Amino acid sequence: MADLTVFGGGSWGTALAASAASSGHSVCLWCRRSEQARAINASGTNPDYLREISLPAGISATPDITEAALHSHYWILALPTQTLRGFLPALESFCTDRTEICNVAKGIEIDTGKRISEIVGEILPRALYSVLSGPSFAEEVARGLPTAVTVASGKDGSALFWQSLLNTTRLRLYTSHDVTGTETGGAVKNIMAIASGLASSLGLGDNARAALVSRGLAEIMRFGEALGAHPLTLAGLAGMGDLVLTCYSTQSRNFRLGMALGRGLSLEEARTEIGQVAEGAFTVRAVTEAARKLSVDMPISRGVHRLLYEGASPAEELERLLTRDPKAEYPPAILWSSSSCPKKESGV
Amino acid sequence: MADLTVFGGGSWGTALAASAASSGHSVCLWCRRSEQARAINASGTNPDYLREISLPAGISATPDITEAALHSHYWILALPTQTLRGFLPALESFCTDRTEICNVAKGIEIDTGKRISEIVGEILPRALYSVLSGPSFAEEVARGLPTAVTVASGKDGSALFWQSLLNTTRLRLYTSHDVTGTETGGAVKNIMAIASGLASSLGLGDNARAALVSRGLAEIMRFGEALGAHPLTLAGLAGMGDLVLTCYSTQSRNFRLGMALGRGLSLEEARTEIGQVAEGAFTVRAVTEAARKLSVDMPISRGVHRLLYEGASPAEELERLLTRDPKAEYPPAILWSSSSCPKKESGV
Repeated sequence: MADLTVFGGGSWGTALAASAASSGHSVCLWCRRSEQARAINASGTNPDYLREISLPAGISATPDITEAALHSHYWILALPTQTLRGFLPALESFCTDRTEICNVAKGIEIDTGKRISEIVGEILPRALYSVLSGPSFAEEVARGLPTAVTVASGKDGSALFWQSLLNTTRLRLYTSHDVTGTETGGAVKNIMAIASGLASSLGLGDNARAALVSRGLAEIMRFGEALGAHPLTLAGLAGMGDLVLTCYSTQSRNFRLGMALGRGLSLEEARTEIGQVAEGAFTVRAVTEAARKLSVDMPISRGVHRLLYEGASPAEELERLLTRDPKAEYPPAILWSSSSCPKKESGV
Repeated sequence: MADLTVFGGGSWGTALAASAASSGHSVCLWCRRSEQARAINASGTNPDYLREISLPAGISATPDITEAALHSHYWILALPTQTLRGFLPALESFCTDRTEICNVAKGIEIDTGKRISEIVGEILPRALYSVLSGPSFAEEVARGLPTAVTVASGKDGSALFWQSLLNTTRLRLYTSHDVTGTETGGAVKNIMAIASGLASSLGLGDNARAALVSRGLAEIMRFGEALGAHPLTLAGLAGMGDLVLTCYSTQSRNFRLGMALGRGLSLEEARTEIGQVAEGAFTVRAVTEAARKLSVDMPISRGVHRLLYEGASPAEELERLLTRDPKAEYPPAILWSSSSCPKKESGV
């Protein structure tokens, strides 16, 4: 059994802390607000997230960064992506080359277009970095429903370490070498979820939604490959798995944003109705800009961007997608570079 | 505008005939039963399938194989997979090396484990073969809702030919070279749909269903690769697209079979309740047998087989899946052979 620190007392951080503590690990849960930490320690529940879940013994919450950082060498980062650059310098003096960091947040830094591995690499260059991603509503993980995710690290040992630490019979971790691919899927899927919500509210049917998810995945693969990802990572849990979860669930804020746009609301009106920020509305700006620079064709993402920021109507964007020239599914003669396909080492 | 023959007056044949006729093609629709053909010609609707759809002018139905075969060199095969070997010899004397065949049925011949390209290749070796597959409920295609599918042929020209013939603003065809991959996805997905229905009826949640679809796709990719398919084809419309459609829709018989099994019904009781054969219940026998011979690991398919034919319980199979040893997502260092990954030819 190990000591473990979770930075971030939102629903995902809380669910992972609970899962790890149930396995017998001693978990320090860092919460930004001291009232939240006090309430968790006093009542054994998080007053702000997953309120109905009784947290297992073995979790102690604190608002003190020093205490949390000194609790262990094993840090799970479960913090909002856009706040990360502001937060990480506080950990700098505690970070050694034995520090294992597992980031579980998704998304891209909007101001810079950077992925979280890049941000952590800049601010905490000595740490060993892993990323955990996949189809995982926090509430279901907290309730012990079966969930499978990918954990990726550039170095073999780190992903295997987190797998051995966090894998349970209810939360299954699959290891990967592909940090870039694992991060890209979780960031870009929110754009497709907006499109999926839109298609749903326009009554386009099940075929159209499956087509959107498939062609959305093709788009994410092209984008990922341009960043150095393996396309197959994006066909896995952190890519297609998370994409499907988000595109087929009304639990997703991005999906609900698309639904609201389909009913004719403006972006502002939709935001007011949903009451929270839908990450995809920001991500689409960073992604379409990066895709432009990389010369990657992303027709669905561009459509969502035109819809949100360039005054296009849902009907116009739908028509534009449907009347594109007929294409090869993977242009021409399959687009993937051989670098994406290392030699087979096993028959299975 | 071309002359075109559709063999098979079921819902998919009828929907494709209607779509093609709407584009201005002259379509001969061969129906097994003469009463059906007569009713279509008399009333402009198919009395047995898609009854609410008015068929466009430009479709003439016939039960006469000779008339249908002589109507054109362009044949769409929309016949039940298990009846195909019995039917095709009737076309032999009409088949030339100009005959373009586009098969739109899915599945594997249960007795032999063969794919439809193999059956057609044996009986009509002179024909040029293409296969059309993807997420496509016939009723939605008939209603003009947006749908995207893959059409694959070994020779470039054939897939492009069918794309130019059948592509519309509502039914989009993407071309591919990968006949094996395009056929495999549509056949194996039904097994996963049974598992998905089961998971749904057990209340396992959205994470579990997304995990099942993702790991099901990984399994289909391994199987397809062993047969010579490109893994990426299976990440496309005919693979993951169709898989998602089937696993997320109660319209699917296979999904409903899984739901019934999850409620504790036996296979026989479930069949009686659903009233029709769920293809996946047969496919799973051919696929698990082929996987054994090819040494491909297919834990979900084997679980469905044990459930249907070896007396296992849903709870046992679930436990078995969840307690497997922790694994790499793509074993080890990514499994795909370089033969699956031709060189990139385009930046997009």
